[in-house]
Amino acid sequence: MTPLRLGMVGGGQGAFIGGVHRFAARLDGKWTLVAGALSSDPERAAASAADLGIAPDRAYANYEEMAKSEAARTDGINAVAIVTPNHMHAGPAIAFLNAGIHVICDKPLAATQKDAGMIKAAANVSKAKFILTHNYTGYPLIRQAREMVERGDLGRLRVIQAEYTQDWLTNDTQNKQADWRTDPKRAGAGAIGDIGTHAFNLLSFVAGLETEALSAELHSFVEGRQVDDNAHILLRFNGGARGMIWASQVAVGRENGLSLRIYGEKGSIEWYQENPNKMKFTKFGSATQILTRGGPGIGHGTDRWARIPPGHPEGYLEGFANLYSDAADLISGIETEVPLPDINAALDGMWFISACQKSSANDGAWCQK
Amino acid sequence: MTPLRLGMVGGGQGAFIGGVHRFAARLDGKWTLVAGALSSDPERAAASAADLGIAPDRAYANYEEMAKSEAARTDGINAVAIVTPNHMHAGPAIAFLNAGIHVICDKPLAATQKDAGMIKAAANVSKAKFILTHNYTGYPLIRQAREMVERGDLGRLRVIQAEYTQDWLTNDTQNKQADWRTDPKRAGAGAIGDIGTHAFNLLSFVAGLETEALSAELHSFVEGRQVDDNAHILLRFNGGARGMIWASQVAVGRENGLSLRIYGEKGSIEWYQENPNKMKFTKFGSATQILTRGGPGIGHGTDRWARIPPGHPEGYLEGFANLYSDAADLISGIETEVPLPDINAALDGMWFISACQKSSANDGAWCQK
Amino acid sequence: MTPLRLGMVGGGQGAFIGGVHRFAARLDGKWTLVAGALSSDPERAAASAADLGIAPDRAYANYEEMAKSEAARTDGINAVAIVTPNHMHAGPAIAFLNAGIHVICDKPLAATQKDAGMIKAAANVSKAKFILTHNYTGYPLIRQAREMVERGDLGRLRVIQAEYTQDWLTNDTQNKQADWRTDPKRAGAGAIGDIGTHAFNLLSFVAGLETEALSAELHSFVEGRQVDDNAHILLRFNGGARGMIWASQVAVGRENGLSLRIYGEKGSIEWYQENPNKMKFTKFGSATQILTRGGPGIGHGTDRWARIPPGHPEGYLEGFANLYSDAADLISGIETEVPLPDINAALDGMWFISACQKSSANDGAWCQK
Amino acid sequence: MTPLRLGMVGGGQGAFIGGVHRFAARLDGKWTLVAGALSSDPERAAASAADLGIAPDRAYANYEEMAKSEAARTDGINAVAIVTPNHMHAGPAIAFLNAGIHVICDKPLAATQKDAGMIKAAANVSKAKFILTHNYTGYPLIRQAREMVERGDLGRLRVIQAEYTQDWLTNDTQNKQADWRTDPKRAGAGAIGDIGTHAFNLLSFVAGLETEALSAELHSFVEGRQVDDNAHILLRFNGGARGMIWASQVAVGRENGLSLRIYGEKGSIEWYQENPNKMKFTKFGSATQILTRGGPGIGHGTDRWARIPPGHPEGYLEGFANLYSDAADLISGIETEVPLPDINAALDGMWFISACQKSSANDGAWCQK
Repeated sequence: MTPLRLGMVGGGQGAFIGGVHRFAARLDGKWTLVAGALSSDPERAAASAADLGIAPDRAYANYEEMAKSEAARTDGINAVAIVTPNHMHAGPAIAFLNAGIHVICDKPLAATQKDAGMIKAAANVSKAKFILTHNYTGYPLIRQAREMVERGDLGRLRVIQAEYTQDWLTNDTQNKQADWRTDPKRAGAGAIGDIGTHAFNLLSFVAGLETEALSAELHSFVEGRQVDDNAHILLRFNGGARGMIWASQVAVGRENGLSLRIYGEKGSIEWYQENPNKMKFTKFGSATQILTRGGPGIGHGTDRWARIPPGHPEGYLEGFANLYSDAADLISGIETEVPLPDINAALDGMWFISACQKSSANDGAWCQK
Repeated sequence: MTPLRLGMVGGGQGAFIGGVHRFAARLDGKWTLVAGALSSDPERAAASAADLGIAPDRAYANYEEMAKSEAARTDGINAVAIVTPNHMHAGPAIAFLNAGIHVICDKPLAATQKDAGMIKAAANVSKAKFILTHNYTGYPLIRQAREMVERGDLGRLRVIQAEYTQDWLTNDTQNKQADWRTDPKRAGAGAIGDIGTHAFNLLSFVAGLETEALSAELHSFVEGRQVDDNAHILLRFNGGARGMIWASQVAVGRENGLSLRIYGEKGSIEWYQENPNKMKFTKFGSATQILTRGGPGIGHGTDRWARIPPGHPEGYLEGFANLYSDAADLISGIETEVPLPDINAALDGMWFISACQKSSANDGAWCQK
Repeated sequence: MTPLRLGMVGGGQGAFIGGVHRFAARLDGKWTLVAGALSSDPERAAASAADLGIAPDRAYANYEEMAKSEAARTDGINAVAIVTPNHMHAGPAIAFLNAGIHVICDKPLAATQKDAGMIKAAANVSKAKFILTHNYTGYPLIRQAREMVERGDLGRLRVIQAEYTQDWLTNDTQNKQADWRTDPKRAGAGAIGDIGTHAFNLLSFVAGLETEALSAELHSFVEGRQVDDNAHILLRFNGGARGMIWASQVAVGRENGLSLRIYGEKGSIEWYQENPNKMKFTKFGSATQILTRGGPGIGHGTDRWARIPPGHPEGYLEGFANLYSDAADLISGIETEVPLPDINAALDGMWFISACQKSSANDGAWCQK
Repeated sequence: MTPLRLGMVGGGQGAFIGGVHRFAARLDGKWTLVAGALSSDPERAAASAADLGIAPDRAYANYEEMAKSEAARTDGINAVAIVTPNHMHAGPAIAFLNAGIHVICDKPLAATQKDAGMIKAAANVSKAKFILTHNYTGYPLIRQAREMVERGDLGRLRVIQAEYTQDWLTNDTQNKQADWRTDPKRAGAGAIGDIGTHAFNLLSFVAGLETEALSAELHSFVEGRQVDDNAHILLRFNGGARGMIWASQVAVGRENGLSLRIYGEKGSIEWYQENPNKMKFTKFGSATQILTRGGPGIGHGTDRWARIPPGHPEGYLEGFANLYSDAADLISGIETEVPLPDINAALDGMWFISACQKSSANDGAWCQK
């Protein structure tokens, strides 16, 4: 198939997540990057575009111009990737949605509920699609786990435990990434927004349950930090299941310790992102099985979402690439096997952030959804 | 040294934890079992005593008689092990304390706060010692972890995570163990009493922090069950550290999944009971180390509490035996390197149980200590 | 930088390793696939080229024509990837080397020593470079291990253990991959060629030692199989180190169980391909460290060869891509930090195969290099 | 049951393995230590006996006197444990066998083949039993593995891999243990005798196959060491299976790295001594299972040989104790479920040692059994 045309807002020289999106878009050959407003600094925008082989006339100084120009071209971009800090999602998202160009936006949706509401409004009236890159849902075994839950391999769910732990904010670190991610204005929240929303999205995706309420205790362990760096959260789901999330950026020794553990009446699964090609599956009364991506038994089904045989590890970029691959299919009218994180999932994440903040401010009182 | 003389209340044929206490007492040769009131059924009591080589005149029909007779003998027992169900701890504990005989009691302290208070009163006026078998504090690496925290290897503590998960009560199982442990009259509580108190004691022992308050959500997933079988608990410690406990007896695939993870400003430890001879230790900014029991580096210190060289695993019974070994020393006037769980630790466990129940009944409101 | 132009021989519809090369070439954006002789079947060649977006005039019916035409174009390919079965390496390799086009060839070098000799001769007189895709040398921690050995972190090496185990040939499986890989004519050897050469190359790359001799016992466990499916090999290295390789395609439960363990006078490393982002490192007398790709301590240096932060796993394709990235640099005159597997490494692999076969035929007599 | 009476030769103050035997004998309450010739130094012998509560009249100055006296007593010992260095096994073993007293002897059988032959001759004519403490056969999951192989769960066996690796002799260490274990006179061999025989016994026990031949390369990496400290061994078994053993005492980072991996036509098992309560089991075409000691599925059968429920780890001492428990049963006329290592297993170990030495001296030539 001919690759779709991708544009990018943000992600210029020195940025982090923009590069990840480009790897993910490139891996399966379904996208080609042809336009960008890569930086708010015009010189850096131009230089970054040149680095990436973007033609000068499609290296835009700002996203408004880009949205307008691309919408007007017959060879205009099919979709735009928005990879700016959280407080700069709403502007471009709305501009491109209004221009009828599909939006692939980094998470969380926005730095404020107000911004989120405006994006929602734009998405509701646009014919373009909105996709939020909760990339961990692209891991093959996570998709497998979702299917297993759905078809009842675990029975009625009881307990759901998710963690996302890091240690890079253990001290009062100063660098480009740390600066905006700990700035309440630009990030909107700390650990709960940056990684907690991933954990919350992941468990929702796999469990397929609606969250009814949460109780949270947020904490800032580093002196002077204005956003949470550690969060303990309890959850209640429809149907009676109970859950816990631990999100931390001060957990010494943890790099990207995202884990998901789900226990039902008949079985359980346990998965750790740092070794994502294996998943434990236990049927009550039987020995625990180690499912492998594409391997024998139940794990075999995951070869749909993998590129290489079992025993050869795939990682973070391949999982991320599955979202880009699915997005290309979706835009091309090909049905995907699993739902992509859409504006509703994005708003769930915003609810999660605000509910954590409200509950914590209220000494852990349960916050209903 | 000549072995001390041990008596036992409970632990007759068909019992579980009594046998564990006997293995633990026997391993290091510091105790010899010479007396018992092993069952409330006189025939079973006599048969059980015969099995264990207890002389017929020291095979008692009940604990009152035993306490009285043993106290009167010149070769009377030095200590009694109480291994009855929770609601039958107070009777014998008080009788032996009053008789001036040291008491080694299984956990939790009692099925009710009232019983607990009565034991406390007896302990306060007795010259005999009271020890509660929170046996996991006997694991060498746990003791090592306590020392590391104490001397500041982890810096000021921030986050403490403990879990104790099992799956044997996933269904409405009926057997001797399940029956009394899920009976509110005999057990007093469910998972929080049976295993949650272990987790709480373990983290208190290692962290050396006072708990200030907790918030809990208890649940009974199995229909008709009258005690909790799953508990999600948040903790606040003096000095500002925060914690979580997850205790569950319905976590399919988990056998005795007790774990302890502690994160401080400078370092962290992670330990899993099912492979207790290893512990992860990370200094912030350095690679994670795998400490082994008695092995090189910091782990070497643990050979004080081990019997065999590193790489040869010790297990649950050896950890339990360390408590019996220490108890023998304590009774013999030899100072132990770590404190044994005493009546105060036992009462902390009772507070933990009642606070969990109160908080949960009150929709998770924080319960101060 | 502008991507280099890549051609491919083999790798048409239904092939396996060709796709892997394409993912690897694409990931870092340093290559663009513009020409191919993708199948010996003309129709399949054309269809495959169309799938991959190759222009019809550069979709060749055979490699001779392709070498000639591409060499003549001003926008001809910079390099060709040869991804045919082993017995079809020599033809295209020689043709492209003779045409002055760089060759990136899948391993092992050839199905026969004669073919290998002819490729060597062509490589010796060509100005073009020859690279063999021993892709596991692209894993960041493997490169790190090589540096650690080189600078003496392990001291003088003593013992080297490598394994490469699979189970997909446990039975007399019939499929396209199994057919040619168990055919002595097309493959030249069984497990020792297909995976044993990877293990041998990997240990040579990291240890930096010359092999002096080997003793081997090859076996074909599946009835009627004409090539080895299990190999036990002992090795002697210059300087006195000793080694073992186990290569098997009948090891039930093993997927791609490639491991490398090296023990020196002062330290050791242990690495497992199925979780390639971690490596154990032990200094004698210290606790074992878990190095992570890009993580704190010694592992941090590996971020040179990684795309994402520690804790986010990279896998097989990323390691493979490092070879393609390095190849692009090499061809562009940029020095690479580690040597790529060249014609000499390729010939070492051929020696390994023949020495295993000779030694095994001679009841394990040591075969000198 | 009334405990049997045990005597001990060797194992006085400062010794290592004697203490292990005492823990093992004591744990299950089937033995009581009543006599000893604990040291060749009379003062230390007496002091050691006093430490252990042995009556002065049964604290012997030498084993000859002990054998004679104990045989003459109506309450004489039922069995003797011989825990001296290898070159001092034959004397006491023969004396007690001749006196009709059962012998429980530490491994390997002897320092020389001559000694071994003499013990065999004595065992053949004695009515007393001879048991060699290959204690790793006491681990419950190892016994389970043996049953699984026997009943065909793995199908016809193909490949057997065993390792026993340590690092405590990495340097030219000087201490009581190192001194005799690296002295050819007292030990008879190095790593192959001290730990290699354990690995060889373990695989023979589980696989149930006769070894037909072996090829070995022994090495002494430490300068001046007169016994092997690293051994690479290839094995051929009756029925066609092939095997490898790696035994090393210079493998930095390894403590007691004993592992056993067996692959058959239908399935495989993998077991690691340092975490002995878990074993991987894979049926070809199914996901790998994690069997736990006493846990659900096939692992459940192991509760016959365990004292506590699954998830509570048992270790080295419990496995060792299983041998003592079985020995008590055997002597009492109770049939054991698995065969104890007897004089034939002991002689197999002696063949293993001498065959390794012969093969290695002969450049790895295969040595038939």
